[in-house]
Amino acid sequence: MEQKLTTLLASVHPRDEEAYLAARARLDSLCKPPGSLGRLEDIAAQLAGITGRVRNQVPRRAVVIAAADNGVTEEGVASADPAFTRTQTENFIRGITGVAVLARRAGADLIVADVGIDAPPCPPPILDYKVAYSTKNFCHGPAMTREEALKAFLAGAELARTAKARGYDIIGAGEMGIGNTTTSAAVLAALTGKPPAEVTGRGAGLSAGAYRRKVAVIERGLAVNRPDAADPVDVVAKVGGFDIAALAGLYLGAAAERLPIVSDGFISTVAALVAIRLCPDVRDFIIPSHKSAEPGFAVLCAAAGLTPMLDMGMRLGEGSGCPLAFFLCDCACDILSGMATLEEAAVGAQYLAARQHFDSSETP
Amino acid sequence: MEQKLTTLLASVHPRDEEAYLAARARLDSLCKPPGSLGRLEDIAAQLAGITGRVRNQVPRRAVVIAAADNGVTEEGVASADPAFTRTQTENFIRGITGVAVLARRAGADLIVADVGIDAPPCPPPILDYKVAYSTKNFCHGPAMTREEALKAFLAGAELARTAKARGYDIIGAGEMGIGNTTTSAAVLAALTGKPPAEVTGRGAGLSAGAYRRKVAVIERGLAVNRPDAADPVDVVAKVGGFDIAALAGLYLGAAAERLPIVSDGFISTVAALVAIRLCPDVRDFIIPSHKSAEPGFAVLCAAAGLTPMLDMGMRLGEGSGCPLAFFLCDCACDILSGMATLEEAAVGAQYLAARQHFDSSETP
Repeated sequence: MEQKLTTLLASVHPRDEEAYLAARARLDSLCKPPGSLGRLEDIAAQLAGITGRVRNQVPRRAVVIAAADNGVTEEGVASADPAFTRTQTENFIRGITGVAVLARRAGADLIVADVGIDAPPCPPPILDYKVAYSTKNFCHGPAMTREEALKAFLAGAELARTAKARGYDIIGAGEMGIGNTTTSAAVLAALTGKPPAEVTGRGAGLSAGAYRRKVAVIERGLAVNRPDAADPVDVVAKVGGFDIAALAGLYLGAAAERLPIVSDGFISTVAALVAIRLCPDVRDFIIPSHKSAEPGFAVLCAAAGLTPMLDMGMRLGEGSGCPLAFFLCDCACDILSGMATLEEAAVGAQYLAARQHFDSSETP
Repeated sequence: MEQKLTTLLASVHPRDEEAYLAARARLDSLCKPPGSLGRLEDIAAQLAGITGRVRNQVPRRAVVIAAADNGVTEEGVASADPAFTRTQTENFIRGITGVAVLARRAGADLIVADVGIDAPPCPPPILDYKVAYSTKNFCHGPAMTREEALKAFLAGAELARTAKARGYDIIGAGEMGIGNTTTSAAVLAALTGKPPAEVTGRGAGLSAGAYRRKVAVIERGLAVNRPDAADPVDVVAKVGGFDIAALAGLYLGAAAERLPIVSDGFISTVAALVAIRLCPDVRDFIIPSHKSAEPGFAVLCAAAGLTPMLDMGMRLGEGSGCPLAFFLCDCACDILSGMATLEEAAVGAQYLAARQHFDSSETP
């Protein structure tokens, strides 16, 4: 399996520079001051770099949700009962959760995969990629074996391949798993060397006492397991979760398949950081969505080199930010394809004068 | 006309507190940690406070664009030819500008009004609310008379009434007018007392020399006209523009009609500040969209008490941020109406346990 991961990493290639630059040139030729549509222009150019086509549309979209349980919940670090993981996973399919409602509005499907729920496999359409019935409590040793971690990474990559084969134009990376802000903060602390207190938040709603316990639990997990920051698979195996591993694999697989992938909040973006650490070119394929309300999110974004576009105070997870970003991608595609160029829009000579002004202006 | 404005202000009433609180209660009962959908929850509750109904949908939407020219462009403060104002106004109707493309994606109409373009009235469907052929150069005296300012305010209020009568559920406030980042910065400096250099940016793309001239021009305008910060109509008349006046009236009219209204970037939000200064309850009816890249925007948002949701680096104007916010409003409406409550979603007893956890958790 180690070899399969190496092969996967080798199959990721950077963006298509020619298509990217052609898209930038077209965006600069449109009837607006160059760069004035900001991130919409960035996304339009990024999509061109991913697909190799200057003009894109992304009508077929899905949020992929990796669901798993975390042994560390034994330590009382989560505000909800672990049985919640399975219940909510089934609720995705029932269409009644936050991400399900938002996905419907954005015309997105949900692809839900059990990668480690602590219960028998759920009935279809929930996909069975279960690696184990929950990870182990990382306070007493590694959350999972390296083999298990690799299995979860490769499951994620296979989900990306499946999405591509089913004809999706873009996917999002969502998750469900009680305790996964704890594992995510542990992975982030390990990868960045930041103290756990700096990157740990209250998750879904912890009391002050439970929050202090959560920080202490992460400190213990790092002390007991001594993850190797230079080896992201080791970090995820020792203090991460199956959901994080599977999503990291999903990002890698999406990049290998040249499929744009939207990151969601804290957990989803920690998985993106893991993938980027394994293979920096993956960043070209990731479209960040929103700024999570988790306190470690700024550190995370800086480490991953990702800047979110939405500041909604959201902290639900599930991939709930992805449908919002899908709409922004639609807008980006439309700008590039639907706006007139300065020449097409010109009624008089003033456009060409404006063009000269824009071109000669110094950037701030 | 002074009396008509007074009547308009008196017809604005605060949000419906009962519907607002009922929406908040429903949002808190949904299968998610309370508050975890952040601004989407805020919008859902805000819409309830505006309409008086707990559940809302906003399918019929329009961006209202007020277009006008500014005499201060004589001073070389803009990077584009003033004739651009009329050309681009006609391009809105042709559907080829940034806001036109984005509005199409969001299913929004454009309502374009000439409130002071320096050219003969445009053919329909562009509405003729022309107050004058451009304002005067505020470096030599007031941009417009108080009567003209009031006429533009009332034109905006009438546009809101028209939108309501046509059945729109939500509108956005857009503008077009070469030179209007200069007038907006002047109005903002006058209303907040901040030095012009602190609230002035490069607009569509000024050189460093032109930027220094722009700041000096605003300083001159304020020194020559001495606008009264306690009288927002005086400020707009002396150093503003017909577009700003009309949009301020649009916000007031929307509030009077209990129609939600989305603010766009710098100019649109300066107009919102003018409206809020005239009538603080107007704030309840405004949904901010994005964080403009203009440097004075943070000062502006703090003064207006508005916090944008999107951080897209956009600085196009035209109302281009409004279609993006319309989609977020759709999402907000769907959350409230489409998600299950905790009780509906419960498969086992763990949801009620979770509920207890959430309810007993201390907020950070």
